[in-house]
Amino acid sequence: MGILTGYRVVDFTSFLCGPICTMMLAAMGAEVLKIERPDKKLGSGPYKGGERIYDLSVMRGKKSITLDAKDPQQHEILMDLIKTADVVVENFRPGVTKRMGISYEEVAAVKPDIVYTSISGFGQKSPYASRGALDIVIQAMCGLMSITGEPGGRPLRAGASIADLFSGVYAAYGTMALLFNREKTGKGDHLDLAMLDTMFTVCENAVARYLNAGVIPKALGNGHPSNACFGDFPTKDGSIILAATKTPTYIKLCKALHIEELIEDPRYVNDDVRNKNKAELHAYLGTLTSQWETKPLYEMLANAGVPCGIVNTIPQACEDESILARDMIVELTHKTAGTYRLPNTPFKFEHNPITLTKGSPILGENNREIFGELGLSKEEIDALLEKQAKVRTMFKEQAMD
Amino acid sequence: MGILTGYRVVDFTSFLCGPICTMMLAAMGAEVLKIERPDKKLGSGPYKGGERIYDLSVMRGKKSITLDAKDPQQHEILMDLIKTADVVVENFRPGVTKRMGISYEEVAAVKPDIVYTSISGFGQKSPYASRGALDIVIQAMCGLMSITGEPGGRPLRAGASIADLFSGVYAAYGTMALLFNREKTGKGDHLDLAMLDTMFTVCENAVARYLNAGVIPKALGNGHPSNACFGDFPTKDGSIILAATKTPTYIKLCKALHIEELIEDPRYVNDDVRNKNKAELHAYLGTLTSQWETKPLYEMLANAGVPCGIVNTIPQACEDESILARDMIVELTHKTAGTYRLPNTPFKFEHNPITLTKGSPILGENNREIFGELGLSKEEIDALLEKQAKVRTMFKEQAMD
Repeated sequence: MGILTGYRVVDFTSFLCGPICTMMLAAMGAEVLKIERPDKKLGSGPYKGGERIYDLSVMRGKKSITLDAKDPQQHEILMDLIKTADVVVENFRPGVTKRMGISYEEVAAVKPDIVYTSISGFGQKSPYASRGALDIVIQAMCGLMSITGEPGGRPLRAGASIADLFSGVYAAYGTMALLFNREKTGKGDHLDLAMLDTMFTVCENAVARYLNAGVIPKALGNGHPSNACFGDFPTKDGSIILAATKTPTYIKLCKALHIEELIEDPRYVNDDVRNKNKAELHAYLGTLTSQWETKPLYEMLANAGVPCGIVNTIPQACEDESILARDMIVELTHKTAGTYRLPNTPFKFEHNPITLTKGSPILGENNREIFGELGLSKEEIDALLEKQAKVRTMFKEQAMD
Repeated sequence: MGILTGYRVVDFTSFLCGPICTMMLAAMGAEVLKIERPDKKLGSGPYKGGERIYDLSVMRGKKSITLDAKDPQQHEILMDLIKTADVVVENFRPGVTKRMGISYEEVAAVKPDIVYTSISGFGQKSPYASRGALDIVIQAMCGLMSITGEPGGRPLRAGASIADLFSGVYAAYGTMALLFNREKTGKGDHLDLAMLDTMFTVCENAVARYLNAGVIPKALGNGHPSNACFGDFPTKDGSIILAATKTPTYIKLCKALHIEELIEDPRYVNDDVRNKNKAELHAYLGTLTSQWETKPLYEMLANAGVPCGIVNTIPQACEDESILARDMIVELTHKTAGTYRLPNTPFKFEHNPITLTKGSPILGENNREIFGELGLSKEEIDALLEKQAKVRTMFKEQAMD
């Protein structure tokens, strides 16, 4: 029994912030019903066994239902379904839910205590509300790209879709807060989360330094604006990451490298002077680290209590001892694509289980189960699925024209 | 009344994932009591009005109490305080809470339904449990740095402390889930969240592509592994971000740039072929975008429905129309440092308020209020604070030796 077992989420989300949000709800045991268009197209690769790896990943632990909200009969089924739900999550552009007849107002009219979560690029009410936003657009506009990259180089995005991921988990947090509130008060609510707002929040330190100390944050490679002994240092076969920013760890670093004389050196004796004089300090440290191979240097420094790290590739991260020891890779099963592996969720509770153990469904896998539960007879379901199949065929023929 | 108004969090956290977690609880109205060492040192700058901007930021909306857990009398007060709490959050290295006598087991013994959240670099049980981890160490070890940076360049960290931020918000989500669970079942629990696990999860797509399609993800600058028309394109005065990855937005892009002939071009007619042939397509698009100034090109493309963006600096992001329209910058007050400004929280509820409206406290600002509430007389509080002041003086004298 997960924490949200028995709670139902109607999921209208797509690429990528929304599916992350509903996946986090599924991880706590919620029954997530992903509503798909009957004529859903397979997106871009890579694929495994004919399935898109993206879908294998973000659809895990969810159920799949096909419904066309624009068809009056199917819209009615959708609203009947929503009446049985606790949560609705959508990440359409603002305005689309109204055109589909599933806006917060319309849903709350039939299900007043619904928890309704909207995620969008710029928010339901914003001068840019109608504009599309993918991850990189938000990474650019929030200011993050301007502080990521080589000093003097072009602005760079982080290599994962962190604007989507952050927005997804912020939305999940807000949704869980509203579920908590509903449990106490019986009342629902509507969360309007903007990706841009979220990522502006994530730039917290850079924004705070600019607004309150007039500092204009810039890209510093792997350096830190106010700390020394932070970043990558050369080794014989690559680099090592050091983060010995505070005096106690700086002292450990000096002892480990046998440069005790630098501990009390007035140029380096506290955090602020080390930061001012870090160019020469880092150059000197680099002459020492470059005499080592990465792995033994890492082990030596880590054992000496120095915060440090190795730059793992993705394959190396997948074989990392701690990742493996904590079961951070799970094997799942898909009906046609077979078994596959994904990162686990990071939540380790002592008493409550995490229930994200099922693979992703095939398109419409749960149609009969859910439509039947809503009271449709076998004949009605057959007729509905036949209608959907015709739309799919029509769509295919149009595409081939 | 915030959603968590009336709920008390005892906060043992420090730099940076922990304070982010408790700030998110404070945003929902929780009373967060930050336990500080009586001899707390002011950390590195920048400062405003003698206060550290870091503290002005992460301590907002919290209360400050000084208690030395190693002193038996103060440890007793601490445990009395914990008995009045709903949540404990800590991000010490694993093992430290046991030495301080505030481990989950010890806390649950006096407060069985406590929600106890631990955040650490590698987890309470990990081969690296005893190792320190700052943000950059985790960004390196999870694999993210290996996919961030210029193609062929050195691995780079994202310019914000996103490993801390992600771990903070994942922990807040887990904590809120446990509070929800406690509301329903009356039972508490212990969350053991590792920063490395969290950030491995954040690398979701890269890990999934490696594990299931054998692709080894690499740094691609601002490119995308499986999408075209994604990244930065040159303009007369800088660059523009495009994210016209799917055929419908690609068609809008072609129409806006008056290159309709490319829409049906077999090299570019669907997502997969565009991705295969993106080198030549991007080179050609660059010759068109470079005839424009950034701002008018952005407005033209955005109005045409093309997902696109401008690379804002942090000052520009602080003046962005959407950021301002959505009140994403708040002014707060600190007793001695005066007024200051920070990014707001991104949660916009229709019915429930966000309560993160107070500035950060001065050290020990809430000692008398909270100690008095626990039943200590004025004389006992005077004696306790005098004892703490002596430790501070002793500490200062030692530091000057």
